[in-house]
Amino acid sequence: MLVEGRHYFPNVDPQSLGHKVLAVNLSDLAAMGARPLGFTLAAGLRDLSQANRPWITAFTKGLFDLARTTQCACVGGDTVRVPASAPQVFSVTVIGAVPSGRGLKRSGVREGDEIWVSGRLGDAAFAVAEKISHEKLNWPQPQIALGLALLEIAHAAIDISDGLNSEVRHMLAASGQDLLADLHWQKIPLGATIQQAITSGRLSEEDARLLAAAGGDEYELCFTAPPSAHAAIEKIGLTLGVELTCIGNVRRAGQQLSNQIHWMLDQGVALPSALVQRLNQSGFDHFRS
Amino acid sequence: MLVEGRHYFPNVDPQSLGHKVLAVNLSDLAAMGARPLGFTLAAGLRDLSQANRPWITAFTKGLFDLARTTQCACVGGDTVRVPASAPQVFSVTVIGAVPSGRGLKRSGVREGDEIWVSGRLGDAAFAVAEKISHEKLNWPQPQIALGLALLEIAHAAIDISDGLNSEVRHMLAASGQDLLADLHWQKIPLGATIQQAITSGRLSEEDARLLAAAGGDEYELCFTAPPSAHAAIEKIGLTLGVELTCIGNVRRAGQQLSNQIHWMLDQGVALPSALVQRLNQSGFDHFRS
Repeated sequence: MLVEGRHYFPNVDPQSLGHKVLAVNLSDLAAMGARPLGFTLAAGLRDLSQANRPWITAFTKGLFDLARTTQCACVGGDTVRVPASAPQVFSVTVIGAVPSGRGLKRSGVREGDEIWVSGRLGDAAFAVAEKISHEKLNWPQPQIALGLALLEIAHAAIDISDGLNSEVRHMLAASGQDLLADLHWQKIPLGATIQQAITSGRLSEEDARLLAAAGGDEYELCFTAPPSAHAAIEKIGLTLGVELTCIGNVRRAGQQLSNQIHWMLDQGVALPSALVQRLNQSGFDHFRS
Repeated sequence: MLVEGRHYFPNVDPQSLGHKVLAVNLSDLAAMGARPLGFTLAAGLRDLSQANRPWITAFTKGLFDLARTTQCACVGGDTVRVPASAPQVFSVTVIGAVPSGRGLKRSGVREGDEIWVSGRLGDAAFAVAEKISHEKLNWPQPQIALGLALLEIAHAAIDISDGLNSEVRHMLAASGQDLLADLHWQKIPLGATIQQAITSGRLSEEDARLLAAAGGDEYELCFTAPPSAHAAIEKIGLTLGVELTCIGNVRRAGQQLSNQIHWMLDQGVALPSALVQRLNQSGFDHFRS
């Protein structure tokens, strides 16, 4: 459910909004390795009059262009009017299919797995923080083809809507075997915009990596797979034209360190604890924001 | 999508609201003769704090009690916070199954069909108009068993969310063969509460029948079937303990009268045109209201 003013700016391009309400849900299907079948849309709109027709037409175009390219048919929905003072609200449900019993889950992480991430991170969070328009934020591309390709290869997957740092913990907690993730701080792939912001001095590299590690709204996939699949995964990335980066490993931990992330600097040294604290405090949460 | 203040009173019993958000969607499945499989709920809430826990617990109880009795599992969802000044909003999507290619549709009406309605009408609309609490309004019972029983028997079906008069027109229009419905004004089954209101002099019989013919929020089924199925349908009603009333017939009309309803008084005389006009003006519409 996307609520105006909370999940998107009121002045957003309606075409990109129509795209986004479906894209963020397709991203969940992608993380399951599912093939999209159909979607429903419930829309709470303030104005259904002729005056608002251009807005609705643009929204619909963004929505159905993506529905078409992903072969995800509109199979139902509802339109209601909300009061003039209320935020507009959109709720999309997607339905997809996986081979019986073989969908990717967040709970499949195993000891020894490598941890991978698709694409580059941080630009969406940077755009939100700076209140700038950004392709990554407005036109998220659900990694459907990647999810399908990973179906027989990955052990677990999740999409990065709440930030990489949180999502890896979600996977570890769901997999529940006293697992710990070693992640390499320097290996987080940084988005082009925050890389430029570092170059221009607008952003410290530390802040850029914090955005990339904690920022939400990315809709990239984070997944784990056995080291034996490393070459196959690199090939998938090349075939699909999707950057895939191995950022760490999973190992068994004592109960005390269960579900924790052990962030390391490149040379194997632990990330300074002050930075870890900042990272864990900057977790992305729509309710807190 | 149910919006606070528009589709339900802000002070509604949260348990009945939880029931209702699912029930109104299951009613759509019932009208298709579908077996419920699962549902998703997106909830936009103002307050997720401990203080609001009793409200959320009661809502959840109403929702899951109905999910259990209808064997409709929760398969997904979302919870977001809406601003303090915004109405709460709930969006439910239900998924059901019918034998391949054999679901009931509103578009299946055929010449010669009888028109039936389940239950008794008008009490929900009366409760809304009088702003009183009413079982029918707060605890609608989706006619799932009836829908399943009608699957091989009825030609077309629809649930009465927008009022009987509108729903019959929707079926005729969707079936598109220049059909007309003869409906018997006196045969509309009146709810117990409006019958009492007539007896006590609070409501004229005319106003009561207007409420029953035009009032929404009923969630009973209206369906058409061939006269040869008349006895079988009566037996279904007895078996399920659901009142089923034959209120009219479908015949072929000239193009001019296509999709019209010909309301008749018991003796075959047409309903006075002033009354027909009132009826057609009182169509139930959440957007107009």
